[in-house]
Amino acid sequence: MSARVFINEVAPRDGFQIERDFVPTADKIALIDDLSPLGFAKIETTSFTSPKAIPNLADAGEVMAGIQRQPGVDYVALIPNEKGVERALACGTDELNFVMSASDSHGRANLRMTADQSLERFERMTDLAAGGGAFINASISTAFGCPFEGDVRPERVLEIVARLAAIGIQGVSLCDTTGMANPRQVAELCEAVLTRQPKLSLTVHLHNTRGMGLANALAAYQSGVMRFDAALGGLGGCPFAPGASGNVCTEDLVHMFEQMSVDTGVDLDGLLKVAEGLPAIVGHDVPGQVFKAGTSQRRYALPEAAR
Amino acid sequence: MSARVFINEVAPRDGFQIERDFVPTADKIALIDDLSPLGFAKIETTSFTSPKAIPNLADAGEVMAGIQRQPGVDYVALIPNEKGVERALACGTDELNFVMSASDSHGRANLRMTADQSLERFERMTDLAAGGGAFINASISTAFGCPFEGDVRPERVLEIVARLAAIGIQGVSLCDTTGMANPRQVAELCEAVLTRQPKLSLTVHLHNTRGMGLANALAAYQSGVMRFDAALGGLGGCPFAPGASGNVCTEDLVHMFEQMSVDTGVDLDGLLKVAEGLPAIVGHDVPGQVFKAGTSQRRYALPEAAR
Repeated sequence: MSARVFINEVAPRDGFQIERDFVPTADKIALIDDLSPLGFAKIETTSFTSPKAIPNLADAGEVMAGIQRQPGVDYVALIPNEKGVERALACGTDELNFVMSASDSHGRANLRMTADQSLERFERMTDLAAGGGAFINASISTAFGCPFEGDVRPERVLEIVARLAAIGIQGVSLCDTTGMANPRQVAELCEAVLTRQPKLSLTVHLHNTRGMGLANALAAYQSGVMRFDAALGGLGGCPFAPGASGNVCTEDLVHMFEQMSVDTGVDLDGLLKVAEGLPAIVGHDVPGQVFKAGTSQRRYALPEAAR
Repeated sequence: MSARVFINEVAPRDGFQIERDFVPTADKIALIDDLSPLGFAKIETTSFTSPKAIPNLADAGEVMAGIQRQPGVDYVALIPNEKGVERALACGTDELNFVMSASDSHGRANLRMTADQSLERFERMTDLAAGGGAFINASISTAFGCPFEGDVRPERVLEIVARLAAIGIQGVSLCDTTGMANPRQVAELCEAVLTRQPKLSLTVHLHNTRGMGLANALAAYQSGVMRFDAALGGLGGCPFAPGASGNVCTEDLVHMFEQMSVDTGVDLDGLLKVAEGLPAIVGHDVPGQVFKAGTSQRRYALPEAAR
């Protein structure tokens, strides 16, 4: 197993997009600037999508232009269509993260496209992005199950991954959009993708909806995955899984790996300080546990009676 | 890896003992009676300890006498001393769970005994229990770390386990009392115990203080552990880790294993119904996630626009 993993902080996009209240542009920029020096491989900064579809990220261009970019960090934007490619490239986005769903119902509900329609569109988007210098990743939502259809066949996901590779897409994220995955399933699908597509950069995007977020991350790690999406404080979620907790929490994931002596590159103490400020930014409590409990290194004073 | 695991439901003891308000005896009995038909291997029902030490469990004898025992379920009681052994045997407790701490500071704070003092006492308690027909288990608190001392050497834990086996104790629970363990550590210690003491019945008792509960359970399972303590709703915690979440949540653990096609013997749907009633019993929200989010099998109606 690898002694190093790479973290993509997705809270500015996947967290803020679903908040009830619009997070002010200045707060978004300030948070990203706080995160940038902490050692992330990538920060998913925003989404170049229609302001009607995601009003919370209507300030994508301003955010991308306003942040202080840190050398060594790739600033990623989620992109649903050709217009998004143009807008993202115009402001020098390092990575374009195309998004589709493995299941057609979720694709129609979320993007008004089936998987095949998304793949056709991705060809045009990839052509458009060619020569722009950006890394092209594709996120496959509902790769481990669909909240409308249920099981998603691994063969179908593998077929989609093969078509993405054929299009020329460089990286793929397998997304457990509503937290339906279990560790056995994660290990099996990740191993199959790594075996069949060794040249693709593979990321897992996990949610903690049913408490299995870190267990699934462990299973992915054991199967050879080195890249993980995670959201500060465990922000995020899915409109189709109300009441559930959100993305795997970045500081809890980093803490687990660092405790296992797996290097994340991330400054955990610095990250915990940023996480402590998150409830004030979003106006509510967040699911992250380590910033509340302290790390495993935390020591308590011995009670008087026991001294 | 085993296709079957065995769950010990500990909420009636480890959960209720730390609640701010005394849970009425009738509520305790009703909850245990609701849990009994669900397929647990064991239910840790109460603790025969001093009512001064744990006022919340002062009704131990009444609870043990009041429940409807289900054939095939072992009703366990936590036992700190000789008097507890006598009281537990007098009401036909199936399993006596002796408790000690691997670290002397925690032992002094929690039990007023060092580890060596506990081991000496366990010899007398085991002699006293001989012929009483009860299974003897010993729980080793702070086996993965101490909130006062920090790291606990695995060699020390292995030495304690060897002494417990020599005394004639039949089962050992490695307890991550304040949720300090990580998956690598859990795997290494469990493998060492299973290798050196193959005749001992090994259980892990995990907390979710830092979000790693299910990941640690997965690591224990992968290393060969088949027995797990867990608390309904994720009740419990530790007075020395305030603000933290509690035990591994039973229904979340059962859900994960069942999703992985590992048989727990537990009726998950029945369990979720009992879990839904737990906040009303304890008067507050509880950390369990699956009873809020639904299982991974839950399906949502497709939004109108996507049909």
